[in-house]
Amino acid sequence: MPTTEAKEIRLLGTCPDQVGLVARVTRFIADRACSIRQAAQYDDPRSRTFFMRYSIDASRFDGSAGAFASAFQPLAEELEMEWRVVDATVKKRVVLLVSKFDHCLAYLLHRWKVGDLDCEIPLVISNHEDLRSLVEWYGIPFEHVPVSKDPDKKREAFETIASLIDTANPDTIVLARYMQIFPPWLCEKYRHRVINIHHSFLPAFAGAKPYHQADERGVKLVGATCHYVTEDLDAGPIIEQGVVRIRHNHSIEDMIRNGKDVENTVLARGLRLHLDDRVLVHGNKTIVLE
Amino acid sequence: MPTTEAKEIRLLGTCPDQVGLVARVTRFIADRACSIRQAAQYDDPRSRTFFMRYSIDASRFDGSAGAFASAFQPLAEELEMEWRVVDATVKKRVVLLVSKFDHCLAYLLHRWKVGDLDCEIPLVISNHEDLRSLVEWYGIPFEHVPVSKDPDKKREAFETIASLIDTANPDTIVLARYMQIFPPWLCEKYRHRVINIHHSFLPAFAGAKPYHQADERGVKLVGATCHYVTEDLDAGPIIEQGVVRIRHNHSIEDMIRNGKDVENTVLARGLRLHLDDRVLVHGNKTIVLE
Amino acid sequence: MPTTEAKEIRLLGTCPDQVGLVARVTRFIADRACSIRQAAQYDDPRSRTFFMRYSIDASRFDGSAGAFASAFQPLAEELEMEWRVVDATVKKRVVLLVSKFDHCLAYLLHRWKVGDLDCEIPLVISNHEDLRSLVEWYGIPFEHVPVSKDPDKKREAFETIASLIDTANPDTIVLARYMQIFPPWLCEKYRHRVINIHHSFLPAFAGAKPYHQADERGVKLVGATCHYVTEDLDAGPIIEQGVVRIRHNHSIEDMIRNGKDVENTVLARGLRLHLDDRVLVHGNKTIVLE
Amino acid sequence: MPTTEAKEIRLLGTCPDQVGLVARVTRFIADRACSIRQAAQYDDPRSRTFFMRYSIDASRFDGSAGAFASAFQPLAEELEMEWRVVDATVKKRVVLLVSKFDHCLAYLLHRWKVGDLDCEIPLVISNHEDLRSLVEWYGIPFEHVPVSKDPDKKREAFETIASLIDTANPDTIVLARYMQIFPPWLCEKYRHRVINIHHSFLPAFAGAKPYHQADERGVKLVGATCHYVTEDLDAGPIIEQGVVRIRHNHSIEDMIRNGKDVENTVLARGLRLHLDDRVLVHGNKTIVLE
Repeated sequence: MPTTEAKEIRLLGTCPDQVGLVARVTRFIADRACSIRQAAQYDDPRSRTFFMRYSIDASRFDGSAGAFASAFQPLAEELEMEWRVVDATVKKRVVLLVSKFDHCLAYLLHRWKVGDLDCEIPLVISNHEDLRSLVEWYGIPFEHVPVSKDPDKKREAFETIASLIDTANPDTIVLARYMQIFPPWLCEKYRHRVINIHHSFLPAFAGAKPYHQADERGVKLVGATCHYVTEDLDAGPIIEQGVVRIRHNHSIEDMIRNGKDVENTVLARGLRLHLDDRVLVHGNKTIVLE
Repeated sequence: MPTTEAKEIRLLGTCPDQVGLVARVTRFIADRACSIRQAAQYDDPRSRTFFMRYSIDASRFDGSAGAFASAFQPLAEELEMEWRVVDATVKKRVVLLVSKFDHCLAYLLHRWKVGDLDCEIPLVISNHEDLRSLVEWYGIPFEHVPVSKDPDKKREAFETIASLIDTANPDTIVLARYMQIFPPWLCEKYRHRVINIHHSFLPAFAGAKPYHQADERGVKLVGATCHYVTEDLDAGPIIEQGVVRIRHNHSIEDMIRNGKDVENTVLARGLRLHLDDRVLVHGNKTIVLE
Repeated sequence: MPTTEAKEIRLLGTCPDQVGLVARVTRFIADRACSIRQAAQYDDPRSRTFFMRYSIDASRFDGSAGAFASAFQPLAEELEMEWRVVDATVKKRVVLLVSKFDHCLAYLLHRWKVGDLDCEIPLVISNHEDLRSLVEWYGIPFEHVPVSKDPDKKREAFETIASLIDTANPDTIVLARYMQIFPPWLCEKYRHRVINIHHSFLPAFAGAKPYHQADERGVKLVGATCHYVTEDLDAGPIIEQGVVRIRHNHSIEDMIRNGKDVENTVLARGLRLHLDDRVLVHGNKTIVLE
Repeated sequence: MPTTEAKEIRLLGTCPDQVGLVARVTRFIADRACSIRQAAQYDDPRSRTFFMRYSIDASRFDGSAGAFASAFQPLAEELEMEWRVVDATVKKRVVLLVSKFDHCLAYLLHRWKVGDLDCEIPLVISNHEDLRSLVEWYGIPFEHVPVSKDPDKKREAFETIASLIDTANPDTIVLARYMQIFPPWLCEKYRHRVINIHHSFLPAFAGAKPYHQADERGVKLVGATCHYVTEDLDAGPIIEQGVVRIRHNHSIEDMIRNGKDVENTVLARGLRLHLDDRVLVHGNKTIVLE
């Protein structure tokens, strides 16, 4: 965390609910001459768990986000809070993984270039060479790591990938239609920081070829799901979903074509929520503090 | 079929595709001094099957819909067509089955009363007494047929229901949140004429308590599905679907409340398509000829 | 306000933003042994105005909502806050006005009867007799007040209406497709408490016959808008909006039929937000604190 | 029109309705050993006008699309039909005009590159240099034509543009957020072949800065409209529309960001319908023959 003074700080937390909780946290903030720009809380009535996100104007706070965090530590302990302080002036680092389907990649890169995604993209990794030129046009390093079907070679490939990721030191990893299963040990290492886009309205049509499944079932809407990746394939906490109508005369190719619009939109929206630190995970669900 | 002269006839058909098909059918229509008000066709490229719906202005045709059908018979045979002729001036008869959740029933009855559903409703059957007063306010006969869990008594109950249905002589049966499994032999008897509303975006959350399932999975949209009932529970051909957004702070009760709006809308829309003879079934899918 | 002890209190407020604001309000709440069930705030960056809604568990507070309000008064004055305290255990009273188009009325009455609208409905007023039987079936008093085109008689009619409303003593008035202009002096008297449903996606197609206007312009979506009524016709603060797709082959009658689904849904959703005290008005906009 | 044999032909037509019309046209098609892949018709009941689109498998037709057209001419004249025959195997040529907002351009270029837009793009014209590199990366010629505010120079600029367009010989011109008014004489020259994307749900918020207008009015949905450009600014026939929800805490920048997703999707969908020759214009409306 940088030691320069942060103008905007985000304070995220999850803890058991209790009387006076908000008063104590917001008093802490006010006592540091900070004002709250945006506050969002949620008190889950079933688990009696409290979730909070404060976007804080820290321009009059005399210190870094790290200093703010250190000061908050004792109160957090007292409240048994899982928490983090984020310096909102420091861009998050996002590594993208992609295969050959490049629509999500192209969409994210463009939105990023024009300033609609508030992050840095230090690296794109792919198991194919095809997209090097596009990625490099955006001035982003591209690494080609082929993934073999042979289990030993596949493990090696993911060790290479893990090492590339570690060097890039990302806050977030996005699987932008990456057609490989992300190994559990990597999921665990980057827990709730790996985002996937699945091309169906989950839990309908989990697994491979969802548009083919949708065609077979004869549904009237197809969708896309942006979710955190967990060991349990296609079953991680859902961040965002969307749908689009289809008609009986749509071929699978038409579904794919129309589905891309939804995939792009849902992934961009989900990633934006994540980059804004608006998504808290609770069990297998997300609390989205808009 | 009535022998009076019909002003509007619908001709529906499904047959193997072949060159000249449309020309021959439309020539048949023109030769009866009939003009086509609305034509919709679909040629399924995979099965090479042709689907058609013609809405026909028969005001200058000198005969009944039955006469029109008799005249069409030889051509239909030649084309190996499954077909039907519908006299659009005769309202379809719809029997409704309902349990205690009455929102769909109330919605359909009201839309029907103000002329938004083009049908007659000769009978409502329920396994509870609760809704008698509402139904009778609309001037519709109400029959209470309790359904026991005991298999023998249950079979008896459905025999009673079948007999009531037979007497009412409906074209269509609507399960408006009827919380009983419609027996396979009744599905078979009224094949593609029994319509159900399921309170989820099928195939997600088939079976019981879909809103509870949706809550557990943490989806961001919930939906409803209007489909034909087949022996295979919740797996029949889908007619119409819709969704509504939910938020992390929605309780199951909120989901149910918001879901009702979608259930009402989707069932009303699906039923309207069916009553307009716009839905053709092909395998386990529907062709909706809007 | 009742003097019995309230289990759930809502505290709503709007005031200039300042450091420590949330801390002071939530400290006040905690000091009364109350815990916050749901908190929602919004700090408008342009006007530097703060909006808040706290849903408060007051089961351990030793006093009524009125006592809570009296205790809050000094702090509110200090913070220059416009505010109100609502005893959430007391149902709001809603008077409905309707003409001949009864779909919204029928929808609200049914949702109300099954417990999906948390309010009392002491009175329905109409300028036609047609809906008396429906309203009385729900056990609700119905008053027929014809509204003449003659200005003097019209004024008299609205004086009668105002007097009926005063006697019913409502918190909220809903114009459920009431085809008369609500006079400015009544709008003023029940400021931000009169809710209208307009059958278009405002500001498109304000004024009369919006579906005809939509048909003429050839739009591909039609909508509905739930808004507070102000002197400025169809221009009051918008609470909720929705749309539905239409096709080139939809007649105006089809648009009206499909539009009803959206009108019903949007009005029910907007009214529910209002009854939950989630809608704060700021200038000509609403802050919806979900 | 090429003289090689076409495998797929599209026949589009508009004419007064009459008995036997479909029979005669489809008989004509069948008599050329052609089969109908997809047929869509619409009979407007108010103007008694008939619209048709036939997608025709012409693999057994012994001749070019031009030969097919010549053969159809006499029948078309007899039926007083406005019509055209399109060789679907020949890609349409699309010229794009753009200013500095490049999201729609980037979206179209990417969708085009991966084969989701069935056309050639011989030229992109812009009044700024900024997007040259992006366009040239896709291998497409880029012409920079600055447009001055001085009326004489502006006229000159558009003469240059017209000449560039003429040389590129396009079937379709797309204004992909081109912030200049397309001159009426150019609209007239390329009548119903110039497509614009307007960043609002027209007719709401026509003119400049629609997101600012939407913010001021406090709407709960913002949208985008794809339409043909006519002399009457923002009032041409609408091809496609879409909307996205916004919240009270969305700044104008948030609206713009979310709006882009809808603009991209709506323009891509509208252009695809146009390239498939599915859009017929009737007065100021479109008939979309899906």
